[in-house]
Parts: sequence; structure tokens; C-alpha cells
Amino acid sequence: MSSDKTELAARPLTAEAFAAFGEVIDLNAPRGAPEMQINDGLTTRFHDLFTIDTAADGGRPVASIFRSQPLPLPHRVRELERHPLGSQAFIPLDDLPFLVLVAADASTATGAPAASIAAAQLELFISDGRQGINLHKNTWHHFQIVLGKQRDFLVIDRGGAGANLEEARVDGEVWIPAVELPGAK
Amino acid sequence: MSSDKTELAARPLTAEAFAAFGEVIDLNAPRGAPEMQINDGLTTRFHDLFTIDTAADGGRPVASIFRSQPLPLPHRVRELERHPLGSQAFIPLDDLPFLVLVAADASTATGAPAASIAAAQLELFISDGRQGINLHKNTWHHFQIVLGKQRDFLVIDRGGAGANLEEARVDGEVWIPAVELPGAK
Repeated sequence: MSSDKTELAARPLTAEAFAAFGEVIDLNAPRGAPEMQINDGLTTRFHDLFTIDTAADGGRPVASIFRSQPLPLPHRVRELERHPLGSQAFIPLDDLPFLVLVAADASTATGAPAASIAAAQLELFISDGRQGINLHKNTWHHFQIVLGKQRDFLVIDRGGAGANLEEARVDGEVWIPAVELPGAK
Repeated sequence: MSSDKTELAARPLTAEAFAAFGEVIDLNAPRGAPEMQINDGLTTRFHDLFTIDTAADGGRPVASIFRSQPLPLPHRVRELERHPLGSQAFIPLDDLPFLVLVAADASTATGAPAASIAAAQLELFISDGRQGINLHKNTWHHFQIVLGKQRDFLVIDRGGAGANLEEARVDGEVWIPAVELPGAK
């Protein structure tokens, strides 16, 4: 049924727009509190830029690199995932734009996992490539959506025992359309 | 006295040579155990690349950006510092070589902080710019030695109460000489 088809539009990633889902890590203009001058004045420390929230149930912070191939677009969105026990930060190690697909979760108040996610819950953001993200625990998200060419990210998430992955299907026919990327090769 | 003067020579940073001081984080060829294929096969996860050791005395992991100006060379090395309560990782966000000056610590066995550090304890390494480092807690090190131009690093270290900084002076007259950098502008 054509009325059931949704084509998502990406909007710029900003701290305000993304606040319900996580934190934006702006590598060009990092915001920390406080900034400190250290190392005989040679270094500015932008301190404590995002919350590494990995201690639940005896968890520990784990640092990894994700080396990701581009997701062919258009792409039909069939399911999202979330991590109930820990935050997950993605810091880009190069500087091409990428997409971030998340969903507002009406079930959060009750703690019951969503059986499925409606198109209206979805929000698509585009990072300028110098913005990373730190997903709050329990934020529904699509796996990494890299554009154009292979990209590396430093990822800080949780290691340890416990069930830290849930998945939910997306209702209806939802698509991420092709995106014009001036910088992509 | 001229016989008291030491000029340090940098050697390449390798995991083996650096093992007593910390871990090398190779962004080009990350080594993790295990590597995993995730995200419908689009992503290789190089898992758990270094040990974030920040839990002592109720500490927590903190992520910051260090924006550092070059250290003018030649530079006389007058003191080193160490962090007894936590590891400290430096992941370069661009790709120019930088120096890492550390010291083997004869006092570690007794737990007594060194009153001073001898030139013979010092080891100078050069990162190819795609290698980060994670200093073990208690590793004596110089503050960041950036070459050529301003550089950014993502730093993962420890936040929380407790005395996490010790300093020791370096005996004699020790210098880091100017370094030829083909890639520096």
C-alpha cells in the first residue's frame, strides 16, 4: 500500500535535536566543562565530553575500532537495536558525513521493550563528519550508516556479562533515500 | 659538565618495545581479540583494543579532547609525571608523527615514588601518527610532545577523587633534539 511508504529526510545533527537520544561529540568545537590549559600552556583540555555509562551489572568500558563499508542507498529500514546496559560512543577517525537513524521510544516510561517501531518514531540525522555521537543506553538505533567509502570509528561501549542487545522491527515500508554528498568519492 | 649532557634519540613505537609502559593503539592495523563481522557484514569490529583502567578508588572513565600546540625543539626535559590511579589513552585525530617520552621506573617494585629520574631510565619513541598509546597507570611520562603544528587527541583517562598526579624531576641535562619530519608543514 503506497500510503504506508515513508521516505526519511536527514536533518543536521545538533546537540539540541539529538539530546533525547544521546550526546553530540563535536571534534571541531568540543565543548567541555571546564576547559583547562595544561602542559605548560601548550594544551587545551576539553574535559569530559560525553558520559561513558558502562558500569551497570558489573560492566566495564571497552574501546574498539569499527571499520565500516558504506550502506548501499536507498536502504529499506527493517529493524533497529538498542543496548539496555550501556552507552555507545562513535568517534569518527576521518571526516566524511554519515547518517544516524534513531527512534523515540514511547515504551521507555514503562520499561517494556517495544514490539515494533512506527515510522513516526524515527529521526534521521546527518553528521558533518567531524561530529561523533554517544548513544544513551536504551536508545533505539540503526547500525552504522556510512556513506561513500570505508570509514573508521573509535567506539566506546560496554563489555561484561548481561543481555545488552535488543532488537525491534520497524512497521511499514520505511526507506533511507540516496543522499548527495559533495565530499564523497 | 658536558659529560652530564644527554641527547635522546627516538625509536619507532612498537607494541613490543612499548609493552613495559603501555599499549600501542594502531589505527591502521588495529589488533583486537576477537575481530567480529557485524552490521550485516558491513563492519569489522576490532574489539577491546586497550585497557581502560580507571576504576581504582571509585574512579570513572572520562573522555576529553587535548588540543596541543607543538613543543619547540630542542627541548630540555626537566620533569616527568605519572598517574597512580588510572591509565591514560591518547588517540590521534589526525596523522602527523609525535613523540612519546617515558621512563622505566626502578621504584615500582617498592611502590615508593622516585625522587628523581636518571637519563638512563628515559625512552623516547616516535609514533607514525596513526598510532595512539595507552599509558599504564604509574608510567612516568612527559606531557604531550606534538611536532610541526597543532594536533588533536581523544584522551580516555580517569575522573574521580584521589591524588592521581605525581611529578619527578629528571637528573642532569637531558635534551630532546629537533626531529626531521617529512610530513610536517
